[in-house]
Amino acid sequence: MLEKLLETRERHKITNTEELAIVARIEAALLKGARDFFIKNGFIEVNAPHITRATGACENIDTLFGLNYFGVQGYLSQTQQLYLEAMIPKLKKVWCVGPSFRAEPDADERHLTEFSLIEIEFEGNFEELLKYIEGTVCSMVEEVLKEEKLLKKIGVDVERLKNVKAPFKKITYDEAVKIVGLEWGSDLKSKHEKMLVEMYGNQPLFITHFPKPIKFFNMKENDSRPEIVNSTDLILPISGEAVGAAEREHRHDKLKERLENSEMIAKLRIRGGGIKDFQWYLNCVKLNGIKLHSGCGIGLNRVTQFVLGTNDIRKSTVFPLNSQTIM
Amino acid sequence: MLEKLLETRERHKITNTEELAIVARIEAALLKGARDFFIKNGFIEVNAPHITRATGACENIDTLFGLNYFGVQGYLSQTQQLYLEAMIPKLKKVWCVGPSFRAEPDADERHLTEFSLIEIEFEGNFEELLKYIEGTVCSMVEEVLKEEKLLKKIGVDVERLKNVKAPFKKITYDEAVKIVGLEWGSDLKSKHEKMLVEMYGNQPLFITHFPKPIKFFNMKENDSRPEIVNSTDLILPISGEAVGAAEREHRHDKLKERLENSEMIAKLRIRGGGIKDFQWYLNCVKLNGIKLHSGCGIGLNRVTQFVLGTNDIRKSTVFPLNSQTIM
Repeated sequence: MLEKLLETRERHKITNTEELAIVARIEAALLKGARDFFIKNGFIEVNAPHITRATGACENIDTLFGLNYFGVQGYLSQTQQLYLEAMIPKLKKVWCVGPSFRAEPDADERHLTEFSLIEIEFEGNFEELLKYIEGTVCSMVEEVLKEEKLLKKIGVDVERLKNVKAPFKKITYDEAVKIVGLEWGSDLKSKHEKMLVEMYGNQPLFITHFPKPIKFFNMKENDSRPEIVNSTDLILPISGEAVGAAEREHRHDKLKERLENSEMIAKLRIRGGGIKDFQWYLNCVKLNGIKLHSGCGIGLNRVTQFVLGTNDIRKSTVFPLNSQTIM
Repeated sequence: MLEKLLETRERHKITNTEELAIVARIEAALLKGARDFFIKNGFIEVNAPHITRATGACENIDTLFGLNYFGVQGYLSQTQQLYLEAMIPKLKKVWCVGPSFRAEPDADERHLTEFSLIEIEFEGNFEELLKYIEGTVCSMVEEVLKEEKLLKKIGVDVERLKNVKAPFKKITYDEAVKIVGLEWGSDLKSKHEKMLVEMYGNQPLFITHFPKPIKFFNMKENDSRPEIVNSTDLILPISGEAVGAAEREHRHDKLKERLENSEMIAKLRIRGGGIKDFQWYLNCVKLNGIKLHSGCGIGLNRVTQFVLGTNDIRKSTVFPLNSQTIM
């Protein structure tokens, strides 16, 4: 019944619909749920710039939007992670919510060029990380369930949401590739995630300990198996990967070595950048006595998709931005 | 005592200081105060894109950052106002907090190229607007006063903040120019604002009813005096203009006429744009039966400056972005 929300080129024609108003209320409730959890748990909000050097990139720097920033190459940030990490030594637990930009040319049910990203970073380990992710997602779902009447109005199966309870089920990447019949080292595709989530009871599912080469350069190596990192993705029914998370490497020399050997830096060098773009971050790690820390990014729209029960991301936000849309 | 916070080129050198941590806590408290007020008063959060056509511009389109958006001219938004307005017919009261971008080449005590902007739009008139602004600012200040110990630690005069109480004093633009000896029609400069605020007891001061030509095209004309608009700026001691606000023109034909005759459109035409950029917004106003509505934008850093008692904006945020800084 949300078919009219597929429209992105002439979004103004549906801003006055009941459906879009309800999607707005759902997004607002999910954000409130996340923020309330952070504040209750002692996290401090930190705002950082969205025009950055390559330090604002996630793994894939090919999808950075570039701009001329007073004569130097600037980018629109995809994550505030490194800025948040820089504040950990003094603030211990930090969070932010803001736009994340991806120059994705495809305009379809899976791609947006801008979306709201919820991020936390804190002093602590992998086990605490899993707990904070569970806590955040449960708080978001609890808050949205206060809008039960509205949810039912647009055909949402509310019982499915009421079953979301911590602790979430967990499987390792090793187990996951065995089950879906993938070669070790390959990344899971959304069809694999869907298969796994259905096998594990159609509830949020952690997949942990991914191979190092397919993940962000500062995800911490596992002590006993250096070919994997202490990372997790949280897979939600219907929408797929909603959270990417990991312990961060906090030992300067190791971090620098990982960065130097990363695919990201190789790609950045082709564009005229390099280690120097990350020098401020390396300096922070070196000079500020940062301890073992962890963090995650939660894609708001993926949670909204899960709530709505839709496999189309264009239905999951009020003003979806993709390559065909600009208002 | 916050002198070290003037550093913007090598910000990473001070991320581990007590002073910057306290600034972060102050910003976080101010945002919490604003959000709590909005939620308590029935405002719904709406997220809109930050890559826009000229519809993301404030009065001065000369300070837009441009980017190539899949072959069309895109800009980084300065305000979410028009998107928020589009949601009023169904949601009645909406808000957002996000980055606002200004391509300001000057890197000094007054200029940032990105800052956090708090915005509301709602169905209602000028008197309600003044009440909501007072309520938001008071809620922000109350929340930050919960951090009294931290404030004192960095030398903030807390008594000054305790005196912030609604209703705020109000003078008209007509009175203001008379007092400072300016010709009618000229914009007030920050030195004039400072003079006025000091004359009126060093407390937040509304200046109302500005001349139409110096304000945004959709600020509503005053019924009995069409040469002025039902607008207000809120001037804070020390930091100056912190809030810009107005009733919005909601009659389609009048709005279109105002837009066509605006300086903004004249400038936009030189860049190859025009009325067509605003067509979706005009359509929303025409088709959705929008009633008299009002709204404002609150510059977070200006409130932080007021709290800190500093006339330098570089001290008022954790990661200030100006033309010399990009991390």
